[in-house]
Amino acid sequence: MPDYQAILDAIREEVRPLLGQGHVADYIPRLAEVPREKFGMAVATLDGRVYRTGDAGEVFSAQSISKVYTLTLALRAVGDRLWQRVGREPSGNAFNSLVQLELENGLPRNPFINAGALVVADVVLEAYADPRATLLAEVRRRADNPGLGDDAAVAASERQNGFRNAALANFIRSFGNLRRPVDEVLDFYFFQCSLAMSCVDLARGFLFLAHGGACPWDGERVLEADQAKRINALMLTCGTYDAAGDFAYHVGMPAKSGVGGGIVGVIPNQLAVAVWSPALNAKGNSLAGSAALELFTAKTGLSIF
Amino acid sequence: MPDYQAILDAIREEVRPLLGQGHVADYIPRLAEVPREKFGMAVATLDGRVYRTGDAGEVFSAQSISKVYTLTLALRAVGDRLWQRVGREPSGNAFNSLVQLELENGLPRNPFINAGALVVADVVLEAYADPRATLLAEVRRRADNPGLGDDAAVAASERQNGFRNAALANFIRSFGNLRRPVDEVLDFYFFQCSLAMSCVDLARGFLFLAHGGACPWDGERVLEADQAKRINALMLTCGTYDAAGDFAYHVGMPAKSGVGGGIVGVIPNQLAVAVWSPALNAKGNSLAGSAALELFTAKTGLSIF
Amino acid sequence: MPDYQAILDAIREEVRPLLGQGHVADYIPRLAEVPREKFGMAVATLDGRVYRTGDAGEVFSAQSISKVYTLTLALRAVGDRLWQRVGREPSGNAFNSLVQLELENGLPRNPFINAGALVVADVVLEAYADPRATLLAEVRRRADNPGLGDDAAVAASERQNGFRNAALANFIRSFGNLRRPVDEVLDFYFFQCSLAMSCVDLARGFLFLAHGGACPWDGERVLEADQAKRINALMLTCGTYDAAGDFAYHVGMPAKSGVGGGIVGVIPNQLAVAVWSPALNAKGNSLAGSAALELFTAKTGLSIF
Amino acid sequence: MPDYQAILDAIREEVRPLLGQGHVADYIPRLAEVPREKFGMAVATLDGRVYRTGDAGEVFSAQSISKVYTLTLALRAVGDRLWQRVGREPSGNAFNSLVQLELENGLPRNPFINAGALVVADVVLEAYADPRATLLAEVRRRADNPGLGDDAAVAASERQNGFRNAALANFIRSFGNLRRPVDEVLDFYFFQCSLAMSCVDLARGFLFLAHGGACPWDGERVLEADQAKRINALMLTCGTYDAAGDFAYHVGMPAKSGVGGGIVGVIPNQLAVAVWSPALNAKGNSLAGSAALELFTAKTGLSIF
Repeated sequence: MPDYQAILDAIREEVRPLLGQGHVADYIPRLAEVPREKFGMAVATLDGRVYRTGDAGEVFSAQSISKVYTLTLALRAVGDRLWQRVGREPSGNAFNSLVQLELENGLPRNPFINAGALVVADVVLEAYADPRATLLAEVRRRADNPGLGDDAAVAASERQNGFRNAALANFIRSFGNLRRPVDEVLDFYFFQCSLAMSCVDLARGFLFLAHGGACPWDGERVLEADQAKRINALMLTCGTYDAAGDFAYHVGMPAKSGVGGGIVGVIPNQLAVAVWSPALNAKGNSLAGSAALELFTAKTGLSIF
Repeated sequence: MPDYQAILDAIREEVRPLLGQGHVADYIPRLAEVPREKFGMAVATLDGRVYRTGDAGEVFSAQSISKVYTLTLALRAVGDRLWQRVGREPSGNAFNSLVQLELENGLPRNPFINAGALVVADVVLEAYADPRATLLAEVRRRADNPGLGDDAAVAASERQNGFRNAALANFIRSFGNLRRPVDEVLDFYFFQCSLAMSCVDLARGFLFLAHGGACPWDGERVLEADQAKRINALMLTCGTYDAAGDFAYHVGMPAKSGVGGGIVGVIPNQLAVAVWSPALNAKGNSLAGSAALELFTAKTGLSIF
Repeated sequence: MPDYQAILDAIREEVRPLLGQGHVADYIPRLAEVPREKFGMAVATLDGRVYRTGDAGEVFSAQSISKVYTLTLALRAVGDRLWQRVGREPSGNAFNSLVQLELENGLPRNPFINAGALVVADVVLEAYADPRATLLAEVRRRADNPGLGDDAAVAASERQNGFRNAALANFIRSFGNLRRPVDEVLDFYFFQCSLAMSCVDLARGFLFLAHGGACPWDGERVLEADQAKRINALMLTCGTYDAAGDFAYHVGMPAKSGVGGGIVGVIPNQLAVAVWSPALNAKGNSLAGSAALELFTAKTGLSIF
Repeated sequence: MPDYQAILDAIREEVRPLLGQGHVADYIPRLAEVPREKFGMAVATLDGRVYRTGDAGEVFSAQSISKVYTLTLALRAVGDRLWQRVGREPSGNAFNSLVQLELENGLPRNPFINAGALVVADVVLEAYADPRATLLAEVRRRADNPGLGDDAAVAASERQNGFRNAALANFIRSFGNLRRPVDEVLDFYFFQCSLAMSCVDLARGFLFLAHGGACPWDGERVLEADQAKRINALMLTCGTYDAAGDFAYHVGMPAKSGVGGGIVGVIPNQLAVAVWSPALNAKGNSLAGSAALELFTAKTGLSIF
């Protein structure tokens, strides 16, 4: 087994020169305030160990990473019927999203583009009596951290500037593919994006996807083994915005990123790895985080390919 | 180890009802003549065994599957400089190809869409003194079959009706991203598509991608280990036309398909599996072949996720 | 001078067989209730005469025809500075609207597509203290009909189902090209669309565009002569949705249509002509109305070409 | 009647400062050699007079202006059946052309975009025994200039670099909307573009469109009156590339431009006006020529609106 601690510490040194580069998502004022020199990384293995370096214990805004958890809730509630309302294909590029919605009659390409996540949010809102509490409880159990919470200021900040998401939601609604009121869907969507999690939370919180859908420490079945594999497949093809191909090419593992600067990856049957650094590259993924994950696979030899 | 022979035979029985369904690519008259009840499947494992069922020994037109071999030749010749001329991202959908070429200044999205394969063909034409002989020799060595050849009638049939590929080639040329004359590039492209291979040829011929880029029986280094992994990543995200996401979701292994009805998949460190059935589904992949591969992963439990 | 009365009556007879054809805009429930056999037509000439036939005195929902009046108010208030926020080119087709907004950074193609009309509404909201009263007063003066009003039930009906317009407004707002709150812009937009006018109102109400921007009966200067000509040019190139080219080809005069089934055309220096019939053709213009205008130009020999 | 000679001379002075601005179409090497300080303008009136200024007698490459003549030949041969193979709507913008061809199954938007002109060329090739001779004879008669000819060097220069037109032609052919061989269509297309005409030739040569389709000096019927009006409508909505709306707005007359720097406009029942200056603005129309035509309408008060 690789010496994960040594590897994480080495990576931290190697990415240091990158920490000043990239840009912070400034359309969410609260995120723009985060110091860009932050860097944390954590590995959680199936045998229960957690390795960490840098700011691995500091919480940041999970943003799109939360889409994996709402997808989990949606699949648990409606199973494969979900795919009648959202696709499973990469979207090509950001530019295409509205065009594709138009051409494809309001059916978003996949659950990880914003349009798809809004539909998933709508499904969760329909399926659960108290969706916010359910989501929060789920994420806390996955991360084994009962103190984990959301950041209402981030949600409010996004809601106020979320004209593009409001455009998407209204557009999808015009095709009849949202059932709850647009405002309710948007509120829940911004709530889920505002989950505040650390690298340790995320590494631990994605382990069930490396373990065939079961929680490694108590055996709780989160999803069927098939469903877990399929979320991994979706993360690989669609998890890192327009860079999914490049990410598969260079990093070689299923991963989900967020504009808060976090990225979580999964090596099936072995581990989950989370990294955080706020400044983003041109594709919207953490710049230093992407480099760190590429170094991680190079140094460990781990890859699904 | 699973009983591959029993599994292949069982799959053959299970897909039998599907053999009448789907459509044959009728824009290539020669392909339209192939009887649609054909079905063959072969597995080649790293330890040198080959399992086969049905028409696994019968040759058919490799078509787009050949793109993996020209990509191999191009990477060997120019390495990562290739990515200055072609991208590594999924294309979203067929419709986008021309739009994306326009928006992205003649840089095709990936080497497996036709536009990208034309650029790869151009690179091969520039890099090798006798590109046809080089390609043929390469494929023969990979498949360990010195009798393997091309089908000039198929190439001629495609060339005659290949207005859309001619449009693509001229369009890319207008951006300066083809260097050899358009007609020469098209001729080579139709030649590569016309390679005639059997499931056994293809299963054996893709084993180097399951073996870190080295030939399993004689150790010949075909590509660097990194390059082999990355071709697998490209196949997973872009190898099965507009159905790559769906394929990753349901089948869970890197694979490349062709309109001749063939599909080849790779499970790293274990095996390569090839299937052939001429009739295609709406996404252009072999209908029975896709089902057979999904059954294969279900029955063996194999998956990269 | 042609015998306009005889021509209108003849047209009414000739289009009678068309009155059962086409479809009524059913996304606005109130509009869907209008009997589709309705047909009215009116001509107003510069010398003050008004000719009418059929239901020419019955009010219907002006819908997009109102965009000419808000454009008039916007040009009067900000002049050519308007064109920094909205273009003057045809949009190609409906499908393009969102794509073009994206590619062109939130600058709508022209003031007559919905996106452009939302920006014009925003300009009017910024420029006038009481925009609704101003608009209503303007339209009443142009039509010489102090009793002219809006239909609040139509506005409410549209507002409730106006998800696509809400999507557009939010999208434009995300580019910073709306300055008033999205809801306020939408409310004003649906108000303007709900103006209830008859063919007589509309024929009289567009005469200033045939008269160099001045009111023909009292000489009031509504717009500069140049501005009036330019609104005519805009109507010709962009006034009838995706059928502007076809309309120019077959009818040969500047015209503006609405989904309420009205169309108004202008022959500079001579007359304005309005027609109404609720059922629409595939391009969203009144089916019988389009035919009636083509007959009108054929029978009178009038054309700007 | 305005003093056209004085107006032309005044315009020539006023546009002088613009002659250094803009760019020359450098993808056609022969065109790039033309001195950019050239400026000519000519007016031909229905009563037979011709006014000229500057380089009005010097020939230049007609380029897209020739599309009006091939459209004339096509309409004469097949009448309204032409519209089964090409549309009559503005294309929105250059970017859309390939997308629209794809979405609209190979039916070009209008006869003046390149895709449409290729289809018109195909129609002419099918309809006439000796299409080149027929076209040349037609243009000579219209311009009353038997010495008018083509410039083979320009055609060769375009043919050699015409990859984008070759892409378009192959693409249209793939939809079955070209019937003659692609190379034959392209050769004829580049031939028509290479017609060498002066402003005087063009002003005289478009007079039939200001005269209801009949030649003003000998009464020869070139087209039906309806057809002539409809070509004017097409020029207004589609004649000046992506600037048709802007052109209608600022100039207010039907016009056709070419990348050789020529523009010809028509005021029905009065005159035709041609201008030439090689350097183009961002939309591909002669920069000084566009300004000159706007000055012409401002100084004469002429406008169809």
